Amino acid sequence: MSTTTDREWRVNISEVAKRTCNPIRQVVDCMKVEPCASKHVISLSIGDPTVFGNFNVHPSIQESLIKQIKSCKSNGYGPSHGLLEARKAIAKKFTIPEAPLNENDVIIASGCSGALDIVFNAMFDKKHTLLIPRPGFSLYRTMAEAKGFSFREYDLIPEKNWEIDLQQLESLIDETTGAILVNNPSNPCGSVYSKEHLLDIIALCEKYRLPIIADEIYCDMVFKGNTFYPMASLTQEVPIIAVGGIAKKYLVPGWRVGWALIHSRNGSLDKLRTAMISLSQLIIGANTLVQSALPDILLNTPESFYEETILQLEQNVKLSRDILSEIPGLHVVEPQGAMYMMVGVDIKMFKDIKNDVEFTEKLMCEESVFCLLGQCFQFPNYFRIVITAPSDQLQEAYVRIREFCARHTKQ
Amino acid sequence: MSTTTDREWRVNISEVAKRTCNPIRQVVDCMKVEPCASKHVISLSIGDPTVFGNFNVHPSIQESLIKQIKSCKSNGYGPSHGLLEARKAIAKKFTIPEAPLNENDVIIASGCSGALDIVFNAMFDKKHTLLIPRPGFSLYRTMAEAKGFSFREYDLIPEKNWEIDLQQLESLIDETTGAILVNNPSNPCGSVYSKEHLLDIIALCEKYRLPIIADEIYCDMVFKGNTFYPMASLTQEVPIIAVGGIAKKYLVPGWRVGWALIHSRNGSLDKLRTAMISLSQLIIGANTLVQSALPDILLNTPESFYEETILQLEQNVKLSRDILSEIPGLHVVEPQGAMYMMVGVDIKMFKDIKNDVEFTEKLMCEESVFCLLGQCFQFPNYFRIVITAPSDQLQEAYVRIREFCARHTKQ
Repeated sequence: MSTTTDREWRVNISEVAKRTCNPIRQVVDCMKVEPCASKHVISLSIGDPTVFGNFNVHPSIQESLIKQIKSCKSNGYGPSHGLLEARKAIAKKFTIPEAPLNENDVIIASGCSGALDIVFNAMFDKKHTLLIPRPGFSLYRTMAEAKGFSFREYDLIPEKNWEIDLQQLESLIDETTGAILVNNPSNPCGSVYSKEHLLDIIALCEKYRLPIIADEIYCDMVFKGNTFYPMASLTQEVPIIAVGGIAKKYLVPGWRVGWALIHSRNGSLDKLRTAMISLSQLIIGANTLVQSALPDILLNTPESFYEETILQLEQNVKLSRDILSEIPGLHVVEPQGAMYMMVGVDIKMFKDIKNDVEFTEKLMCEESVFCLLGQCFQFPNYFRIVITAPSDQLQEAYVRIREFCARHTKQ
Repeated sequence: MSTTTDREWRVNISEVAKRTCNPIRQVVDCMKVEPCASKHVISLSIGDPTVFGNFNVHPSIQESLIKQIKSCKSNGYGPSHGLLEARKAIAKKFTIPEAPLNENDVIIASGCSGALDIVFNAMFDKKHTLLIPRPGFSLYRTMAEAKGFSFREYDLIPEKNWEIDLQQLESLIDETTGAILVNNPSNPCGSVYSKEHLLDIIALCEKYRLPIIADEIYCDMVFKGNTFYPMASLTQEVPIIAVGGIAKKYLVPGWRVGWALIHSRNGSLDKLRTAMISLSQLIIGANTLVQSALPDILLNTPESFYEETILQLEQNVKLSRDILSEIPGLHVVEPQGAMYMMVGVDIKMFKDIKNDVEFTEKLMCEESVFCLLGQCFQFPNYFRIVITAPSDQLQEAYVRIREFCARHTKQ
């Protein structure tokens, strides 16, 4: 071995690291535009309901966590896949007659992202392909690229409230397909699928014997007149791994506690369950204080708390739709749940805007309104609005967007 | 694609999952011996200072966390590599003139294990080899096997207070070597290296231009008469990534907040820093409540708190050494820090005990005392004692061990 001629330090950067790129961060970081100095920034870009201060955790949840802190009984290591009492509470919360769960079917992780990390690590080798939605949450793609397995994107149809193009989805299935990931309710679309549509997806999985990864982090964040059906409630056959967490519904994304629910269906996921427990031992689980408060959080938070959140979101959707759908050059796809809305940009209506990148950049530059461009979700010429801002800020943002569009419209 | 003949569900278990095995869990789970029914179990097996209730978090830390909960300001997402204020506090706490740190040199992760996960993911491809200690913390090996890169074990010498066999270490270095991992103070040995020994290690790394991964999670847990030197304080040249966390010193392993400190040395780790930030975006960081309390925890916990912990540990070491070193067939290597003690078993002294596996199994079965066998740390014919138990429980355990040894000694 050379010791003197080679004077560079031998610091390697792994291929995994080189492949790991969060497109939202990349796009946002590459934007490099300054907001308009005379207008305060209204950021409708980040899917974090806590940033504006209008959505707060319920006092009973705070009290429960404080009780755990004072007890000094939850400072130690728990089992790496989660405290027994926490797993029991999750199982109790999500069990239904059609899809019974017990504590052994629950893997707790560091947030829903941590749960997805474990699921993907457990299921896919390089040769496998995961089917993911387009538009879709960018982390699916980021994780696939980092871990070195393939993905193919199936299309969601905006004209059909973002239902899956099932024919195109089926055309993507081949012998490499490892699973279909379904995100319902959807980020970035805010769509909530009907029972019929979910049954169609399930039928396809049954035909090809494919397990489903159901990202249901926005479960129950559903607006009046719509119903959320857990994927697992609609089949007794298809193996389903459902991921979720407390981030969105309980308004605490920073607390980093999520989970995977394993619906094994006659044992078909039993080996996967073991694999996931092994993998959970690598970083030894989620915060035990929050875990120990989970029984209280999940089972004792008053219903009025969710109802209040949903009510505010519904009002914001109505406000957003009413204003934005009247602006020439934009079209709104009204969400049925979650906390997002996709807005299409009719590029040919504008005289000096080529695409969604330019639209969102100029909007930031001229009006200090920050929205995420559709390309972050692999869906150009749309932008995503986060509808958790207080209504007066949304209104102000939409006034600016209206003026912006008018200024750039062809005469 | 076949849809009808192939009726098995297509659930793959990844190669990564198959390779992932925590040897401590495996050994413990395979033991399958029942404790003696008439004696209560004394478990000296798990490196968790909180299990006995005699080591508790300091009230000021609880208060700080409760303040954060009540403020409602730390429920949202932070940057995936950590809140700015938390990174600033860590930098302030660990910066020294010889190894200055600022907030950009700190990556916060879900526990020290999470930090190691990011470091390993960022640095090593399949072709690389990591040099790790034997005996050593089993997670190094588990992570290397899971991630598919190689490792080689360098020897620690019990007769020299577990110093590294530097000649043997050097013989392991070749063109595949990616880094040397040094764990000081050591789990499972409790050794604390002298400045001279650390300088010898550094000289070797300088010769071969190898970065050091310094696992310093037990930093400052050092008994009277010994001094802990941060690896980074002893070189201006060698790039060092030091990992640590609040788990042990602050007695909160379940809180899952750890970090990596990047001592880039003229920019040699700058690309690695960027890679680690990218990788941190996969599971989006550690609990933000604890992160927001970190400035208080690190900078305002009274010194008397650590002194009290150390005092208790020192008393337990003295007690353990005094009793165990008098038992024929056992030899104690006295620790200088951390919370562990390795005890050698002179197997040829015993009439019906073949190795450390049998020793620890029979000890559990006959005396209900549970210690981890040396094989968990790749070091047969030793066992590890966790010295955080209350002294009366340690005393009771040692009385039982003495009787056990006497009963099994050759006449």
